[in-house]
Amino acid sequence: MKKSFKILMLLSAFLLIALPASAKTIRWRMALSWPSNLTPLASPALEVAKWMKEMSHGKFIIRVEGSEKTKAALGVLDMVKSGSYQMGNSGSYYWIGKDPNTVWFTTVPWGMTTAEQYAWFYYGNGMKYMKKVYDKFGVYSFPAGNTGVQMGGWFRKEIKSVKDLKGLKMRIPGFAGKVMARLGVNVVNIPAGELYTSLDRGTIDALEWVGPAMDIKMGFYKVAPYYYTGWHEPASEMQFLVNKKAFNKLPKKYKVMLTTAMKAAAADMFIENFAKSVTAWQKMKKQYPNIKVKSFPIPVLKAMKKATDEVMNSYAQKNKLFKEIWTDYQAYLKKARVWTMMSEYYYLKASKEVGAGQ
Amino acid sequence: MKKSFKILMLLSAFLLIALPASAKTIRWRMALSWPSNLTPLASPALEVAKWMKEMSHGKFIIRVEGSEKTKAALGVLDMVKSGSYQMGNSGSYYWIGKDPNTVWFTTVPWGMTTAEQYAWFYYGNGMKYMKKVYDKFGVYSFPAGNTGVQMGGWFRKEIKSVKDLKGLKMRIPGFAGKVMARLGVNVVNIPAGELYTSLDRGTIDALEWVGPAMDIKMGFYKVAPYYYTGWHEPASEMQFLVNKKAFNKLPKKYKVMLTTAMKAAAADMFIENFAKSVTAWQKMKKQYPNIKVKSFPIPVLKAMKKATDEVMNSYAQKNKLFKEIWTDYQAYLKKARVWTMMSEYYYLKASKEVGAGQ
Repeated sequence: MKKSFKILMLLSAFLLIALPASAKTIRWRMALSWPSNLTPLASPALEVAKWMKEMSHGKFIIRVEGSEKTKAALGVLDMVKSGSYQMGNSGSYYWIGKDPNTVWFTTVPWGMTTAEQYAWFYYGNGMKYMKKVYDKFGVYSFPAGNTGVQMGGWFRKEIKSVKDLKGLKMRIPGFAGKVMARLGVNVVNIPAGELYTSLDRGTIDALEWVGPAMDIKMGFYKVAPYYYTGWHEPASEMQFLVNKKAFNKLPKKYKVMLTTAMKAAAADMFIENFAKSVTAWQKMKKQYPNIKVKSFPIPVLKAMKKATDEVMNSYAQKNKLFKEIWTDYQAYLKKARVWTMMSEYYYLKASKEVGAGQ
Repeated sequence: MKKSFKILMLLSAFLLIALPASAKTIRWRMALSWPSNLTPLASPALEVAKWMKEMSHGKFIIRVEGSEKTKAALGVLDMVKSGSYQMGNSGSYYWIGKDPNTVWFTTVPWGMTTAEQYAWFYYGNGMKYMKKVYDKFGVYSFPAGNTGVQMGGWFRKEIKSVKDLKGLKMRIPGFAGKVMARLGVNVVNIPAGELYTSLDRGTIDALEWVGPAMDIKMGFYKVAPYYYTGWHEPASEMQFLVNKKAFNKLPKKYKVMLTTAMKAAAADMFIENFAKSVTAWQKMKKQYPNIKVKSFPIPVLKAMKKATDEVMNSYAQKNKLFKEIWTDYQAYLKKARVWTMMSEYYYLKASKEVGAGQ
């Protein structure tokens, strides 16, 4: 008896040491700024939840709640800040009302491409600034996937000169909207659900959305034949938000699982959006062969660039950190763009000239 | 006594069920086709090993062995096939001697860009073909990071016409070498350690390597002033190899950890190589302002395109699967390139025209 009792004690002690950490299931909730079925935007959230469950052997469960459930698409930052949700999945530039410096972690007009921006995040000062800007909200922000260059929007009529922008009624939010307003555009805000009808009826003359993968679901190509190439959102990065206290409490292994999963999901989202844009564009173009892909005339593009600089300068004058980040961002963009042109741009140009990929 | 004995049995049974999987430490080895300190190429291997250790709480250990240890840079596939190493980190096109279809999972001349290729891998038939091609070796192959568009190489003299290629002595391996040979280039193979001296002394007239991030370590810019933009390796993807039996034996949680880690590490490598190319190019150009970045003249590019088609056709005639994959690849490239041009290319072109990022 004595011996088996000793073994029993030893086993119990071993159990106490070996099991408690793995026995307790962690349950988190993640709030989304979009419906939980709106892929590719929602894909990273769904992937992270799935992988965390699998990697933790069911011990780390993240319940994904889309805007269809929370009814608070733009309340995500507050919900993660307060801790009522441990995670969020959103877009940093939704918070420019709280802090204009949140814009740097999504995209800015005439800014970096996806590769340039990731290089700035991880090898320039991007992540350092992201941490700084989000610190006051008590949350961490992480990249959550990029849309690549977004299209300049759907227009009912061709834009031939800067004059054609004057009085044009267009849905175009954020910094790009401020730029367009400077060029005389009548920038309007219309709920997503009413956009198609507004464009169809001519209540608005133009709108920007994302790119083929997302645009096809909205049907704009059926009612506005001019599809303009992009200038205003060259690399929109989505974001994961994580409540700092909740994250810091995690054992190391879960921290690494979560950051690894977020990084892999971000990479996946870029690919998904790219691939779905490829097929969506093919489908749209086949169904409506009269869609015309246009780039704005150079004088219009130059006016947009000038107005962009004015908008950025006006923020920089009011906000010291904005000025600091803008200076850093421009310096990085300048050296990164040299390499983009040497590599990707001249390859695409040469391919075009010799008919490769056509 | 009887009661405590029962408890003892119950506890033992519980232990048997709950602990064995987590108690046993898995020890793997990963062989690399390059030195283990040769970043960015070696970075994904080092990251995966680090993350697996952390995510598994020290229960899944991968020992990374670079070519400095194995002395068998090009033996990696065989070593993973035999199971002497459970993992490898290499480049798929190193195995074209065993099967020319391995080339599709690295890059081909005038082929897809990084984004296009990932889209083909995951949303086209790329991964399906990768599985098929590697099945006979008893291994799985996974993407392990992309170099983006590689530079066309360092030349001692400017290339002004197709005639200038005739008799040119150049180190350029793989499919690109076969293309160059058709244009009269004297393609030579020289060990990496002798390349700098050979170029300096004029034993060779030109060579291709990777891009600024890797080239700077080799010093070629000091002895050959013409740096040509790329055409032959638009998106070289590295690879992880995993022994099938070893992978299939893993519990689900470790399978997910490993595939997630590989995906995140691949994304990181692309960013690291991009960022290091940015700074390396800046440094080279500052140190040697006389370096001239050139694109080959259009007639030369056209001759390269024609010779590429001939090389690909000759393989397609001999190899049924090669023909099938090439057809599939070209069809995907054709539709993907339309979107690349609409998005990234026209954005870069417009930026250039308005002076954004300059």
